[in-house]
Amino acid sequence: MKINLNRQSDQSLIHQIANILAERIRSGVVEEDSQLPSIRNFSKENQVSFVTVSKAYTLLEKNGYIRLEHGKGAFVRRKEQRKKIEKRTSKNVDWQLAIPDYIQRSQYMLNLGPENAIKLSSAIINPGLLPSAYLTKEINQVLQDDPQIVARYGPIQGDAEVREAIKKYLQRYGELKTTSSEIIITSGVQQGIDLVARTFIGPGDIVITEAPTYTAALDVFRNRGAHIIPIPVDGEGMQTDILASLCLTKKPKVVYTIPTFHNPTGTVLSKKRRIDLVELAQRNGFLIVEDDSWNEIYFDHNPPPPTIKSLDTSGHVIYLKGFSKALAPSCRIGAMVSNGTIHQRLLTSKSCTDLGSPLLTQKALIPFLSSTRMNTHLEKLRIALEIRRDQTIALLEKYAPEGVTWIRPKGGLNIWVSLPGSGNTDELLLKAQQSNLSFLPSSACYPNEPKYNHLRISYSYLENQQLEQGIMELCKVMELYLQEVKPS
Amino acid sequence: MKINLNRQSDQSLIHQIANILAERIRSGVVEEDSQLPSIRNFSKENQVSFVTVSKAYTLLEKNGYIRLEHGKGAFVRRKEQRKKIEKRTSKNVDWQLAIPDYIQRSQYMLNLGPENAIKLSSAIINPGLLPSAYLTKEINQVLQDDPQIVARYGPIQGDAEVREAIKKYLQRYGELKTTSSEIIITSGVQQGIDLVARTFIGPGDIVITEAPTYTAALDVFRNRGAHIIPIPVDGEGMQTDILASLCLTKKPKVVYTIPTFHNPTGTVLSKKRRIDLVELAQRNGFLIVEDDSWNEIYFDHNPPPPTIKSLDTSGHVIYLKGFSKALAPSCRIGAMVSNGTIHQRLLTSKSCTDLGSPLLTQKALIPFLSSTRMNTHLEKLRIALEIRRDQTIALLEKYAPEGVTWIRPKGGLNIWVSLPGSGNTDELLLKAQQSNLSFLPSSACYPNEPKYNHLRISYSYLENQQLEQGIMELCKVMELYLQEVKPS
Repeated sequence: MKINLNRQSDQSLIHQIANILAERIRSGVVEEDSQLPSIRNFSKENQVSFVTVSKAYTLLEKNGYIRLEHGKGAFVRRKEQRKKIEKRTSKNVDWQLAIPDYIQRSQYMLNLGPENAIKLSSAIINPGLLPSAYLTKEINQVLQDDPQIVARYGPIQGDAEVREAIKKYLQRYGELKTTSSEIIITSGVQQGIDLVARTFIGPGDIVITEAPTYTAALDVFRNRGAHIIPIPVDGEGMQTDILASLCLTKKPKVVYTIPTFHNPTGTVLSKKRRIDLVELAQRNGFLIVEDDSWNEIYFDHNPPPPTIKSLDTSGHVIYLKGFSKALAPSCRIGAMVSNGTIHQRLLTSKSCTDLGSPLLTQKALIPFLSSTRMNTHLEKLRIALEIRRDQTIALLEKYAPEGVTWIRPKGGLNIWVSLPGSGNTDELLLKAQQSNLSFLPSSACYPNEPKYNHLRISYSYLENQQLEQGIMELCKVMELYLQEVKPS
Repeated sequence: MKINLNRQSDQSLIHQIANILAERIRSGVVEEDSQLPSIRNFSKENQVSFVTVSKAYTLLEKNGYIRLEHGKGAFVRRKEQRKKIEKRTSKNVDWQLAIPDYIQRSQYMLNLGPENAIKLSSAIINPGLLPSAYLTKEINQVLQDDPQIVARYGPIQGDAEVREAIKKYLQRYGELKTTSSEIIITSGVQQGIDLVARTFIGPGDIVITEAPTYTAALDVFRNRGAHIIPIPVDGEGMQTDILASLCLTKKPKVVYTIPTFHNPTGTVLSKKRRIDLVELAQRNGFLIVEDDSWNEIYFDHNPPPPTIKSLDTSGHVIYLKGFSKALAPSCRIGAMVSNGTIHQRLLTSKSCTDLGSPLLTQKALIPFLSSTRMNTHLEKLRIALEIRRDQTIALLEKYAPEGVTWIRPKGGLNIWVSLPGSGNTDELLLKAQQSNLSFLPSSACYPNEPKYNHLRISYSYLENQQLEQGIMELCKVMELYLQEVKPS
């Protein structure tokens, strides 16, 4: 089924495909009970990615136009069944399909796996490893000491006291000397990335990312209309020599990097390359966005090199730090460090976005962040996650099928696994989901031409037993899948 | 001083002016100690608004290029003084001026008045009027019952339990029947406006607003490149007949309205016009964004008409509700109600923005929101604010100079005041600031050609005595100013 897609349109390909198919189904051009082309065939015929078609089909299923049957394919629902599903909302909202939007890409629908799956996809830390009891006690104390906290707005830039605490924290972890006036409190690192994008990135601006990279950062840059150029990663992180030669012909505006325990590969940008990167920024006048979600979570008693921001003498680096993952997810607190007018302009955007992060969650973290308990907590967390990393790798060594390889991370939450030959992890994921497993397929981690033969698993979220069960099951699914796709 | 401005540029006029002047100062084209043109003259000569020039001058002052002397004007700093200020940050960040941004307009700098001013500009509720003690107790209980709350992320859409509580609340206030699955939790109404803008508004899209309107909404729409068309407000709110004739030639994509106790004028959109608006949306296929920050705060025992969303049978209305102002500012919780694919697409944007609002602040509000205490609180709040409104109007009646008029609000936090003749509230504000007062000048509230003869004062934030002092002082400043500008 060849359809007419407009690649210059404001509407995403996903919505174009879903809208066109919905039209055809409604008008009866595609008949009831008939089978739609397989995702693979549809994607080949129309030269769009597997993921795009898969999302369009999911959207159609959600809106009641089709039903997806595992292992069989997609079938058009009968009208009477369709109506039943549409009635979930009592309103007739068909007209809405005519309203175009500015969403080019989103990881959101990727996350809609089976509810009770074993989520090897979750790069978050198991609540049992976080200091909930201490934090809860301290929040109660904060509120008792000053009950009017709940009734006050904080400053748009963030509470002065928490900025001071974070200033000191960053000096300890990251060797980063800053002032509290250069810090903006954000709702997690995600909002920091978004603030940079909405302030400095627009249609056609060149953004450099690692390849692969954090999928939700790609969403944000893509939705701003950026021209994203990926730079490959090797054992020492982003290959800055490739970036240097690229700068001879192109003018990047922003370089987005996760230098420490890179997401998804777990690699660390070497100190030499960190210095190179800052020099390149100075010579070429681009901004570096340093996403530092977990530099404290290093293994083997081997702390990472200093942050890029600590090497920045000229205000080229915007440093993003998260406190959600390793401390208090329910507070969603992040910090952004920048200088000069870059800082001023980011502050302006923070104001437009939400007039400042909640004061309560900022105040909540101050006692713990400022105490020595934070050090003790991080030491324990490193040990616990190191054990999980080792356990996971031991299981992979024992059960992974021949040809499957992985990178042993020196910190962080993830392992990057590669399939041999023509293995495609989008296809593998469909099979894994049937076994009630989820992981992150590599197609989500590349900006332009995706690679399909990698996957990311996270060892930080699941309970030990579930983790073991999940990895063993995944190895089984890989084994079966690789036998299927092996050239005979 | 005529300078060369590029109105098609990505860079805002404010930054263009500041950058060009900074260049001239640095290069010595404009000499040390020399006086810059007055804001008024500069704005006339270059055909830009008073506010734009004023912001550019403030930026230059902040960066150490000029000093502003009250009542005298702007003077270029000597180099040695400049360096001292630049050294606040140890980095040399001059190169940053070459990085363009996508900020067209921001209210942020408007808020940078004198630190200890009597803020008649603050449309927030005095913390003493909010139920801090109850809330604090309930938050403690919530944490005690389930300490692991701090260690968990909530769903991107928002916690299911708080969405259920809000669903019931909206049925009580606003006569709004919805399901919890149609609600997205936002970080305040501001984020709701921003989510709509980033999802559905792009360069050249037509956005309708009331004139005047909420200034930070204008920032958001402008920064997305919208073509904003203002519709005037009369005693019954937005003049929907003007909108109807506009629809004959233009195709609006979004109509943004504050129908109930409109910000800044305090007027209420009549029920008839609410119905008109929904019909217009259905006929013309636009979205209505209903900003409902305080429909519960009505006076004279006279509740407002039902929300526009309650009249919406076709999913044309995106309803935004805030719980920050009237309940718990430090939690920054808002809700967005929408249907069908509009809802789905907004959820996608929420995911890109911050991966969901903090779970802690959501959980914190559930007990209070669900209890009858919320009713009691709102009853008390209405009475307290009604008294303040009456007090403010009594003071205006007694002290305001001849020719000054105002609208008596039937609810909400603000009074809209008008000066006679050629009164200009941007100029008045400079004088008020010298008397340590702040208010919102009308120039900030119009999208295209600002009006200069109104101002908004809020009676909700100050303590009674400060409010009295503030209004009396403001009347004095108005008196003196109006004598100055009176045609002789």
